Amino acid sequence: MTRRQKRRLHRDNGGREALANIVRTAERIKGDIDTERKPRLAFPIRSLSNVVYDEDKGIFRLAGGEAIRDLSYTTVKTFAQSLRMMALSKMLIETDDIATKRDVYYQSKNWDEARFNEQPESDTIMDDIEAMLSVIREQLGFIPDEHGGGVAGELVVIDQDPATGEDIQIDCTKFGSGAYTVPPNVEHLRFKTRAKFVLAIETTGMFQRLVKHAFWKTADCILVAMGGVPSRACRRFIRKLADDHRLAVYVFTDGDPYGYTNIYRTLKVGSGNAAHLNEFFCVPQAKYLG
Amino acid sequence: MTRRQKRRLHRDNGGREALANIVRTAERIKGDIDTERKPRLAFPIRSLSNVVYDEDKGIFRLAGGEAIRDLSYTTVKTFAQSLRMMALSKMLIETDDIATKRDVYYQSKNWDEARFNEQPESDTIMDDIEAMLSVIREQLGFIPDEHGGGVAGELVVIDQDPATGEDIQIDCTKFGSGAYTVPPNVEHLRFKTRAKFVLAIETTGMFQRLVKHAFWKTADCILVAMGGVPSRACRRFIRKLADDHRLAVYVFTDGDPYGYTNIYRTLKVGSGNAAHLNEFFCVPQAKYLG
Repeated sequence: MTRRQKRRLHRDNGGREALANIVRTAERIKGDIDTERKPRLAFPIRSLSNVVYDEDKGIFRLAGGEAIRDLSYTTVKTFAQSLRMMALSKMLIETDDIATKRDVYYQSKNWDEARFNEQPESDTIMDDIEAMLSVIREQLGFIPDEHGGGVAGELVVIDQDPATGEDIQIDCTKFGSGAYTVPPNVEHLRFKTRAKFVLAIETTGMFQRLVKHAFWKTADCILVAMGGVPSRACRRFIRKLADDHRLAVYVFTDGDPYGYTNIYRTLKVGSGNAAHLNEFFCVPQAKYLG
Repeated sequence: MTRRQKRRLHRDNGGREALANIVRTAERIKGDIDTERKPRLAFPIRSLSNVVYDEDKGIFRLAGGEAIRDLSYTTVKTFAQSLRMMALSKMLIETDDIATKRDVYYQSKNWDEARFNEQPESDTIMDDIEAMLSVIREQLGFIPDEHGGGVAGELVVIDQDPATGEDIQIDCTKFGSGAYTVPPNVEHLRFKTRAKFVLAIETTGMFQRLVKHAFWKTADCILVAMGGVPSRACRRFIRKLADDHRLAVYVFTDGDPYGYTNIYRTLKVGSGNAAHLNEFFCVPQAKYLG
């Protein structure tokens, strides 16, 4: 791969597909307006009534119901907000920038009548667009303001230098008492490992004890600290790792109902609220240890 | 330094001083009992009434008031709990192990009559012992179950391999889109850097934007993500870095009152609740950016 191709790949992270999707949607709406038809946007219905459990894949997924948002007196504000957010995403992808969900909410304060009053409103529109375009919002340039999880053990992560696009190898056996933090977008990461399994741990404290005793060395594994319910980046990271290297994933929680029903369940089958993207984010390989 | 000395240093982390302190206190109490005097423990009073602002050092510190815990009918339970917790700490230091505050609470369930009913009770006793022995609780083997903060930029952290005691160099310019996670105890870390300043950032999202744009490269600095109010490990890490390399520390928050009064204030002058250890944990060098 040439350096230029590498840079492009790095800049891409799946963003190009999202970009094409945004442009296509915008052109369709422009076409509707030019020919004096009513512009419309079609979103998958994201309520639990439209969620089914897919036994084959082992995930919650959408059943296929769609909601149409016609441009009308009552929908004009959310319609405008959806378009502005798509425009913001387009700009972010084109300039290789990122914004947090909170940044987006604040940005909207400049959108005059289309501004959001509360962050949950902008988060909902963001989820709608993510579902409509069938991409994950990290590919739209939107990142969560959360910690991605800690990693230590028999793993080399291959990332790219943000400035040059050169490959960077990060050896997770060389962190002493510290750890590697999973970045917000993990799509472009590649891995080298000879570990036998991934141990996903609920608490940072237990993770740190195992790091202190270099448990990964004796057990030949990769330790991942989820820090409670795992973030999207953390789930996606474990999923990619398990897929790419056919690794077993064991989940070690505090052994209470919360660990089973929230932490383990979210990691393994995903969340009902986000059924439109569980396909990417859940880890069907996960096994409950206790 | 020989490998053996290195291992010892690694195992130590300031724990030896704590150990000597525990043994001295226990021997004094044993002496009291043997000579039929009333055993007593003296703790610095940690209420806000005993806290003063030290203008020279720029920190909140204890004014010097002491509370005596005589062994009596009403104090017998907390007295026993203090001794058992000191014994647990001694065991942790001697076996080079660590336990989270929550672990300690659960451990106490085996202490028969001395068990704690709620975690705040055990946390309070832990704070008492920390203040009494004038050490930080990380040196007692007790760690918080929290994330220590993310680091990227012009910094090499020198840690030790937990298994061999060999030096490990962690180059924070080589993390791509990821970051280095500060470990729970940072006392043994050393640093190499040619950065001009430390930029401590409130949100993980803004940190990740600056990492994505390799801002540390253009500004010649070290980026630290505090993730809200900085953890003890994160504050101590910044403090050591600033002390060891005479670096300026700039604090970049969301610019709201919470950022100034909680995040910046906790980093710079410490918290009133923990005045017995602000000397170690606050960063008087910190300057507010906005």
